Amino acid sequence: MNFASIIYILGKLLEIEGVLFLAPAFVSLFYREWQGFIYFAAAAICTVLGRLMFIKKLDLKTYYAREGFIVVALGWIIMSVFGCLPFVVTAEIPSFTDALFETVSGFTTTGSSILNDVESLSHCSLFWRSFTHWIGGMGVFVFMLAILPMTGAQNMHLMRSESPGPDVGKLVPKLGESAKILYTIYFGMTVLEIIILLFSGMPLFDSVTLSFGTAGTGGFGIKNSSIADYTYAQQLIITIFMVLFGINFNFYFFIFIRRSIRTAFNMDEVRVYLGVVAASTAAIMINSWHMFEGLSDAFIKSFFQVASIITTTGYGTADFNAWPSFSKMILVGLMFVGACAGSTGGGFKISRIIIMAKSYMRELRHFIHPRLVKNIYIDGRKVKDETVQGVKVYLVSYVIVLIVSVLLISLDNFDFETNFTAVMATLNNIGPGLSVVGPTGNYSAFSVFSKYILTFDMLAGRLELYPLLIFINPGTWRGHR
Amino acid sequence: MNFASIIYILGKLLEIEGVLFLAPAFVSLFYREWQGFIYFAAAAICTVLGRLMFIKKLDLKTYYAREGFIVVALGWIIMSVFGCLPFVVTAEIPSFTDALFETVSGFTTTGSSILNDVESLSHCSLFWRSFTHWIGGMGVFVFMLAILPMTGAQNMHLMRSESPGPDVGKLVPKLGESAKILYTIYFGMTVLEIIILLFSGMPLFDSVTLSFGTAGTGGFGIKNSSIADYTYAQQLIITIFMVLFGINFNFYFFIFIRRSIRTAFNMDEVRVYLGVVAASTAAIMINSWHMFEGLSDAFIKSFFQVASIITTTGYGTADFNAWPSFSKMILVGLMFVGACAGSTGGGFKISRIIIMAKSYMRELRHFIHPRLVKNIYIDGRKVKDETVQGVKVYLVSYVIVLIVSVLLISLDNFDFETNFTAVMATLNNIGPGLSVVGPTGNYSAFSVFSKYILTFDMLAGRLELYPLLIFINPGTWRGHR
Repeated sequence: MNFASIIYILGKLLEIEGVLFLAPAFVSLFYREWQGFIYFAAAAICTVLGRLMFIKKLDLKTYYAREGFIVVALGWIIMSVFGCLPFVVTAEIPSFTDALFETVSGFTTTGSSILNDVESLSHCSLFWRSFTHWIGGMGVFVFMLAILPMTGAQNMHLMRSESPGPDVGKLVPKLGESAKILYTIYFGMTVLEIIILLFSGMPLFDSVTLSFGTAGTGGFGIKNSSIADYTYAQQLIITIFMVLFGINFNFYFFIFIRRSIRTAFNMDEVRVYLGVVAASTAAIMINSWHMFEGLSDAFIKSFFQVASIITTTGYGTADFNAWPSFSKMILVGLMFVGACAGSTGGGFKISRIIIMAKSYMRELRHFIHPRLVKNIYIDGRKVKDETVQGVKVYLVSYVIVLIVSVLLISLDNFDFETNFTAVMATLNNIGPGLSVVGPTGNYSAFSVFSKYILTFDMLAGRLELYPLLIFINPGTWRGHR
Repeated sequence: MNFASIIYILGKLLEIEGVLFLAPAFVSLFYREWQGFIYFAAAAICTVLGRLMFIKKLDLKTYYAREGFIVVALGWIIMSVFGCLPFVVTAEIPSFTDALFETVSGFTTTGSSILNDVESLSHCSLFWRSFTHWIGGMGVFVFMLAILPMTGAQNMHLMRSESPGPDVGKLVPKLGESAKILYTIYFGMTVLEIIILLFSGMPLFDSVTLSFGTAGTGGFGIKNSSIADYTYAQQLIITIFMVLFGINFNFYFFIFIRRSIRTAFNMDEVRVYLGVVAASTAAIMINSWHMFEGLSDAFIKSFFQVASIITTTGYGTADFNAWPSFSKMILVGLMFVGACAGSTGGGFKISRIIIMAKSYMRELRHFIHPRLVKNIYIDGRKVKDETVQGVKVYLVSYVIVLIVSVLLISLDNFDFETNFTAVMATLNNIGPGLSVVGPTGNYSAFSVFSKYILTFDMLAGRLELYPLLIFINPGTWRGHR
């Protein structure tokens, strides 16, 4: 194990986090909140500690896939541990377990909360909480690649481990350029949402924090009622941006950089994604019709909740826990489905679902016509066998983590719906589940043990299982390379 | 599609069912029940109809895998439709949907019931109900292969489609011989259980019917309290036989025919299976300690319920719906795990779990050491790549059927626990689930639509998905061969 370079990269990461802490610190100046001092102190500590860690030079000679996975897993854990300290020190979330849960929930863009009263937080802490979504959405290592002159094929491991999807590629030949393009699109779309929300009459603070939560598909609100108390127009704006941020960023690359709208709209994943959103919205509108007040209410509430869950954002404008079972099951299904690969959303990803479905249809046909070749095509191009196998292995890993997690947290003796959806909502980085962890509830009632299990699930979900699974696998740490 | 030979084989099947109907018919003579006439009539009708269907000669020239799957799927449907007629005609289960559900539940060895009062049935109908478990347990096509002089490699398709497990092989070179050996072991062990139960003081009728339910891992009881009112000794006898019938029959082949006890106990699947049973029993004893009256009560109840669920039998001696969540989750986990391949039990099968777990560990190691070969070994022998891929595809198909089924039956607006465990319990051929379909409940409250979905799931589970999935796949029925 190349510990020297692992420490070097983690040092860089801490330094970046130090700089990021300045954002809530400056917010505190505006609102004259004493908690700002804590954020300034955190910024200083992270920067100094980070600098100390990269005194030695980076040596990538013995830096392999294993190191890449470990750096990403450790990086996200360290970032979260330091990120939660202000919550603990300001005593806004006094318990370390709770603060860590909340911060991991932020960085992983889950949006599950242990807070009973969000509105009691200071503005700077609310800002930091939402800002973690924005940082985690596109990924901090992707950010590092975008701003630092790091070269070498090894960096691909970082990008691969942090970017969601079955087959992560580069937009342009240079990795750093790809990262820059991604962050430019990401930044631009976030600013656009902020501006539109401002025009709709929303206060600046709300516009910024809610846009962070939308862009990262996070879901932390700044009000106890989440998004329910904003106007229909504002809810619709947020809905549309949730849908937009759930789309594969290649789509925007094709539109804005390559200027080929046709290629963009020919992407199978985007079509299926939009189709699922439309079909689910319609199904819920019909099934839960009696829960709504007229057509526009039905449409806006159904569309919002569908967009919020499929993109794994987790904002709420309705207590879907009270909806009929069929509507709830559609939402639980969408939790699993998730957003597009290469978006900021979580879940199993539309492209994996497509590959799984096509592979399944192929297998059925193969039973009948054994001499048929089993190729699968997406966007007109053949999907590599390796990718197809990868999706199946991913499903196996996913099911294993799901079953073990549900079993472990069931020790708290909550009902089945709570246990199952709590794991679904954290593992897929959604936020709210059903029953105790439904839209009007939160995760505070779980034991410390269960909170760590769910914290693990959030990280595992955001990093698509392997970095975390490899991190906890004893075999990884044994002698031989 | 070779319809001629499909009809021929289905005719043979109907004739066999006609003969099988004679068993409850003769039982009715003993109890002087008028319902016996119906069973005699059913026997006559099936035999005549069957004979009419195989007037034409069997032509296997264009008989391929597709025909094999279709014959098995259609065979099980026809067998169930005819099998349920006596229930309807005697008005003991007046609704055709309910009678079909109950009969499919019998043949597929599920044991899910729509009856609120089992004890009101006539003896001959109770006998037929339990007898369907015994017939379905080892499989009616396997029976056909054992008694009829059918030759040709094509028959392997029948055996493959009906026998559970990821890699169905022959015990001896001749297929008919293999089928005979399987049925001999099956018959011998059933008789042994009947004799031991008789010695324990159980009445003959109870001994025979409960042994049918144990042998086929079915689970239909003949009392409203299932097995709870029998003595501890009788419960323990049934528990041990449930465990025995959940073991891969190769185990008995090695012991009784090959006389190699060492080979038998060296089977990885048997070891893991017994380990899981022991560990689950211990975990439930500890977690649900307060629910029991002392050590022996705790042991017998935990052991019984674990054996009943993992073997997918579904008998009950305790209302596990009232147990703590952790114990319930263990049972739900065991529903998925299921018994050994090559046993009469259902579920995902221990051997598939082993292959999945080993493949998963291999993949993790592969991430770290990309040049490692991905071979997997079971019982010291390399598992074919094809088999490993097959298991993953099976999981994909399983998850798809599970999700779609839960979604569809949720239209009845029952709670999540009911919907999820109802599908788990039928798809894995267990019997009882949790909540509404728990050990003290039944499936009568579901709508007609949901009952057909669950009936489909029972058949799909028993035949390991593909025959049924291929049967409903429109592509199967299209022109080209």
